[in-house]
Amino acid sequence: MLNLGLIGCGSIAGTHVDNIVNHLKGAQVTEVFDVVREAAEALVSKYGLSAKVATSASQVIQAEDVDAVVVCSRNDTHFEPIMEAIKAHKPVFTEKPMTTSQKECQKIVDAEVQAGQRFVQVGFMRRYDPYYQQLKKTIDSGLIGAPLMGYCRHFATVPPTEYFTTENLIDDSFVHESDILHWLFNDEYKSVQVQFPRQNSTNQNEGMRDPQIVTVKMKQGAIVNVYLDMNSHYGYEIKCQVVGEKGIAQLPEINNLDLHADRKVYHEVDYDWSNRFTEAYQLELQDFIDQVAANKSPAGPTAWDGYIANVTVDRAIQSQKTEEPLTVELPQKPALYQK
Amino acid sequence: MLNLGLIGCGSIAGTHVDNIVNHLKGAQVTEVFDVVREAAEALVSKYGLSAKVATSASQVIQAEDVDAVVVCSRNDTHFEPIMEAIKAHKPVFTEKPMTTSQKECQKIVDAEVQAGQRFVQVGFMRRYDPYYQQLKKTIDSGLIGAPLMGYCRHFATVPPTEYFTTENLIDDSFVHESDILHWLFNDEYKSVQVQFPRQNSTNQNEGMRDPQIVTVKMKQGAIVNVYLDMNSHYGYEIKCQVVGEKGIAQLPEINNLDLHADRKVYHEVDYDWSNRFTEAYQLELQDFIDQVAANKSPAGPTAWDGYIANVTVDRAIQSQKTEEPLTVELPQKPALYQK
Amino acid sequence: MLNLGLIGCGSIAGTHVDNIVNHLKGAQVTEVFDVVREAAEALVSKYGLSAKVATSASQVIQAEDVDAVVVCSRNDTHFEPIMEAIKAHKPVFTEKPMTTSQKECQKIVDAEVQAGQRFVQVGFMRRYDPYYQQLKKTIDSGLIGAPLMGYCRHFATVPPTEYFTTENLIDDSFVHESDILHWLFNDEYKSVQVQFPRQNSTNQNEGMRDPQIVTVKMKQGAIVNVYLDMNSHYGYEIKCQVVGEKGIAQLPEINNLDLHADRKVYHEVDYDWSNRFTEAYQLELQDFIDQVAANKSPAGPTAWDGYIANVTVDRAIQSQKTEEPLTVELPQKPALYQK
Amino acid sequence: MLNLGLIGCGSIAGTHVDNIVNHLKGAQVTEVFDVVREAAEALVSKYGLSAKVATSASQVIQAEDVDAVVVCSRNDTHFEPIMEAIKAHKPVFTEKPMTTSQKECQKIVDAEVQAGQRFVQVGFMRRYDPYYQQLKKTIDSGLIGAPLMGYCRHFATVPPTEYFTTENLIDDSFVHESDILHWLFNDEYKSVQVQFPRQNSTNQNEGMRDPQIVTVKMKQGAIVNVYLDMNSHYGYEIKCQVVGEKGIAQLPEINNLDLHADRKVYHEVDYDWSNRFTEAYQLELQDFIDQVAANKSPAGPTAWDGYIANVTVDRAIQSQKTEEPLTVELPQKPALYQK
Repeated sequence: MLNLGLIGCGSIAGTHVDNIVNHLKGAQVTEVFDVVREAAEALVSKYGLSAKVATSASQVIQAEDVDAVVVCSRNDTHFEPIMEAIKAHKPVFTEKPMTTSQKECQKIVDAEVQAGQRFVQVGFMRRYDPYYQQLKKTIDSGLIGAPLMGYCRHFATVPPTEYFTTENLIDDSFVHESDILHWLFNDEYKSVQVQFPRQNSTNQNEGMRDPQIVTVKMKQGAIVNVYLDMNSHYGYEIKCQVVGEKGIAQLPEINNLDLHADRKVYHEVDYDWSNRFTEAYQLELQDFIDQVAANKSPAGPTAWDGYIANVTVDRAIQSQKTEEPLTVELPQKPALYQK
Repeated sequence: MLNLGLIGCGSIAGTHVDNIVNHLKGAQVTEVFDVVREAAEALVSKYGLSAKVATSASQVIQAEDVDAVVVCSRNDTHFEPIMEAIKAHKPVFTEKPMTTSQKECQKIVDAEVQAGQRFVQVGFMRRYDPYYQQLKKTIDSGLIGAPLMGYCRHFATVPPTEYFTTENLIDDSFVHESDILHWLFNDEYKSVQVQFPRQNSTNQNEGMRDPQIVTVKMKQGAIVNVYLDMNSHYGYEIKCQVVGEKGIAQLPEINNLDLHADRKVYHEVDYDWSNRFTEAYQLELQDFIDQVAANKSPAGPTAWDGYIANVTVDRAIQSQKTEEPLTVELPQKPALYQK
Repeated sequence: MLNLGLIGCGSIAGTHVDNIVNHLKGAQVTEVFDVVREAAEALVSKYGLSAKVATSASQVIQAEDVDAVVVCSRNDTHFEPIMEAIKAHKPVFTEKPMTTSQKECQKIVDAEVQAGQRFVQVGFMRRYDPYYQQLKKTIDSGLIGAPLMGYCRHFATVPPTEYFTTENLIDDSFVHESDILHWLFNDEYKSVQVQFPRQNSTNQNEGMRDPQIVTVKMKQGAIVNVYLDMNSHYGYEIKCQVVGEKGIAQLPEINNLDLHADRKVYHEVDYDWSNRFTEAYQLELQDFIDQVAANKSPAGPTAWDGYIANVTVDRAIQSQKTEEPLTVELPQKPALYQK
Repeated sequence: MLNLGLIGCGSIAGTHVDNIVNHLKGAQVTEVFDVVREAAEALVSKYGLSAKVATSASQVIQAEDVDAVVVCSRNDTHFEPIMEAIKAHKPVFTEKPMTTSQKECQKIVDAEVQAGQRFVQVGFMRRYDPYYQQLKKTIDSGLIGAPLMGYCRHFATVPPTEYFTTENLIDDSFVHESDILHWLFNDEYKSVQVQFPRQNSTNQNEGMRDPQIVTVKMKQGAIVNVYLDMNSHYGYEIKCQVVGEKGIAQLPEINNLDLHADRKVYHEVDYDWSNRFTEAYQLELQDFIDQVAANKSPAGPTAWDGYIANVTVDRAIQSQKTEEPLTVELPQKPALYQK
């Protein structure tokens, strides 16, 4: 039984703890911490955890009954616990984004390189989604030849909150594509550009420009257009289509009952993200648990992947100011992260 | 320019005349007759035909300016004009059903056999529908192997009229499948059975039992279930699925715009038959015109096909009384109708 | 942690144990028995179970460290352990079919009625399949009105083994529809009929007639045709379409990648059952574990459901001799099994 | 019967003449001209036309037995006959592109403005395609709200000829989207940009860069990405998806038989354009004939639409040199072309 220490007890922490308690095998939560102690206590109580409520993140990481750390705190507080976990040689699963600054990403990567070992897994759960998995496998199989162009839709019925900003379409929504696309295309990003098409007049959120189109170019030349729309009204949809030299592969329609009624043949569309990636959330954490339990480095998205996403998102947010393409630059990829 | 004489000037006659005037090539209507003279005159006027209004069906058939006859009169009045046309060696396109009695069908077939030539085409327009054509071609190609089982839906949004009867589901609706199925399966009918499943409580038509299931067995063993439903409410749909030894072939969904709206991914379904077979109605009559213009016998459904449909429908209506399967018996197929 | 005693250590036992060890929560296997002791030992070893190998089924059932029993032995050996478990007031999950004789089903039901409590869950896993769940919910919601007709396909790429018999299409394949259909339609069976359509000439299995069509009629009149085909060649497919008074609901196509290649737009079809019901197998046993752990009777298919399936399958196999419909008769449903 | 004079007797002329002879109503070809007299004679002979072979385009236009002109000659020879037809006040249907220079477009427009009447219809047949028609109607109905973004695919199995150039992807392929998009979006173009993604290594045509992405921005802000691919290998596909404020509307999959075989559920994709727009070619010319016969100006794409396409295509070809967006500039739209 792997002992997990949890840092940050908000909404996504609830998802992970619910999975650990009700769906995953081989792990339990033994220590929890939140800057708001009541939040930590509430979580322990809600799920009946036999976990201690720590008084600091550090206390969680250093605890003897903690084998690995799960970081779910606010985005700008991931850095310290990740660094401390690496120093303590404890594997750490962190929610995305890994950190909020490029410099911090570099430090985390440096720390792993110095340790000569990978400890970090970043919570880009889409890689564990069975349909993305099929897409990756199909591309790698050569069935459609080399991938040349892509088209994605990341559509929400309505924005997640009234405080969702123009930048959040990038650092909260597009961040997922920023991880998945280089993985699918087996390539690196050359540039990223954000453009604002005709805006949606039904958008109630003044501080948020919507929709947006992100155009990603890769070093081998592939171009992918990602359409972001937080006011689709009709439903929540994640689409990804890859055009290769010999064919096209794309995520399938999500399986819902086939209905004939009211002069329509139809299936229903999800309202929000909660159904779409349920299984992916479980599979990513189970894989982390299984790898760690087997004394292996995590097999999911690495600190380097977190770094890529961070730089790409930063540049995309920069591009929002001019709508011009900006170069995505990263240092040389350390050998530790070569496959 | 082929000169056509039209007998019967009701609704379906209007469809054919509209096609002749606006869509088909190489034919014009030169003589028209209806027992209600005003109906004939109205049709001439509506379409600006330069056609004479005859005082009898016979006058139409015998007219020197009539090369071929189109019979659209009431179902029970097809027989005489068809016989007279055959005797006059004039090709005749008749609406389905060819006649309303088995004895009359036999006489028509006998007349053609005696003349040593086929003159009659029966208006089973589905054979000219591009999707049924594809289905036939695919079966004949061997792609799915020998056809073993079939499943059809013949669904209307609401019944055509308040006078539509229990028998009309057979002689007006199923009559189309009674022609198409032996053609698709390259086989002959062995038996036919009608059963009444749980009845639709929304059915406003007391004189009509709805839905009904017709089970057809063929001589080589194939079994096809045809589901008839005049109160589908959701729309008009004609489906036909053929299960072969190595695969399945079925009519595709009817192409309508792909829509995402209101939490649904959908396409609209037709309200009634008027859109579904527009092209088939044009193609069947154009083919009749082209064959006749080329001094050939019609290439569409023959008098023998009309005879098969007549017997099959008769037996199905008999079966409604007991819900038991009844044998479909026909005399030996004359050489004239062998391919 | 719920302690499970396992009786029968063959292939399906492996599936359940694999799930218990790797996917399910809250249960462990503590005792195992198989008439071939080596089979039991191999299972314990393969999954690293800390379970004792018992010398009889009875020893498993009576063991103090067994809270509930899982019966996976040969079909004709389910009866004794189920009866003993009921007498011991221990919940028992049994693979389908519950037993192989109507008399035994009656005795199991009698035993539960006498105990005033339900202990048995029968392994009809389809009820736990998310798509069947959606179908059930949609019907119950009234969206399509009362269910009037159904159409199912139960197609295998090739027969499971060379020993698969004409009867096995009923007691091994159709048995699943025999459970699912009365559940979906909220009705009871009135009659069942098996017919043999044109046979598949590619069938290599001389002892097996294939395909077959089972026609089920329900007491409220609904008619369902189930097409069984063990030599579909194109793939494994489970389809279920329900036609209601106002619309149609049917299981969706199974989600596989959308592909454009080789002049086709396509998705791949499963080769066999192993992918289709993976989740359903997990959910049925998890539900059994959760209910038992909460000191409740199992919530899945009951002994009465097992009885219905047994009688229906028996009558269907009888019907294979004449291809005539046979009445499905059951005694009065005891109050214990009323919802 | 409308008398048509045909200028240019190549491949597309054959398509139109075949339609006039075999499918369209109310028109005949009375005069034909081609710079290669044998080509004109061959066409007359092939279709049994009772048409005179003229010795110049002018002779066709001025002929007393010519009511309207059809221009199918080489792209760079459309200008003179169009101008002469306008001067002669004879309606003229011209194949796309209207002319090959912006200056000529301006002169044609000026000539019509001066005449105070529209005579020209440009052969952008897609506007007559029933699915594009549905798409236009749906957008105009407001169902999906204002159109914000678009995504198109214009894919060919293999390039039309070995001489197809990098520019031809724009002036021969994209030219269709250059007409259809402003029509669908009810807007004008602001800029156009061509980019070359990773190139297809299977491309056998050295002089042609493939694929290409054209990004069109409209004055109200809408952005549309058009993916052009002449080596799709898998088939010919024309796709158009419009994302509006409240939903998405897109062209449906082209109806081909639904097949289950070889472990796939699939439908076949067209090999080339010949099937896709058969009906549109007929409808566009029939509409021209009907309008002219009714003494009305043509109702299809106007000289102004031809001008827009010309300028847009020119700018796109310019953009191929830098891959930068270029402004699309047109003079003020004359009142004659306001709806």
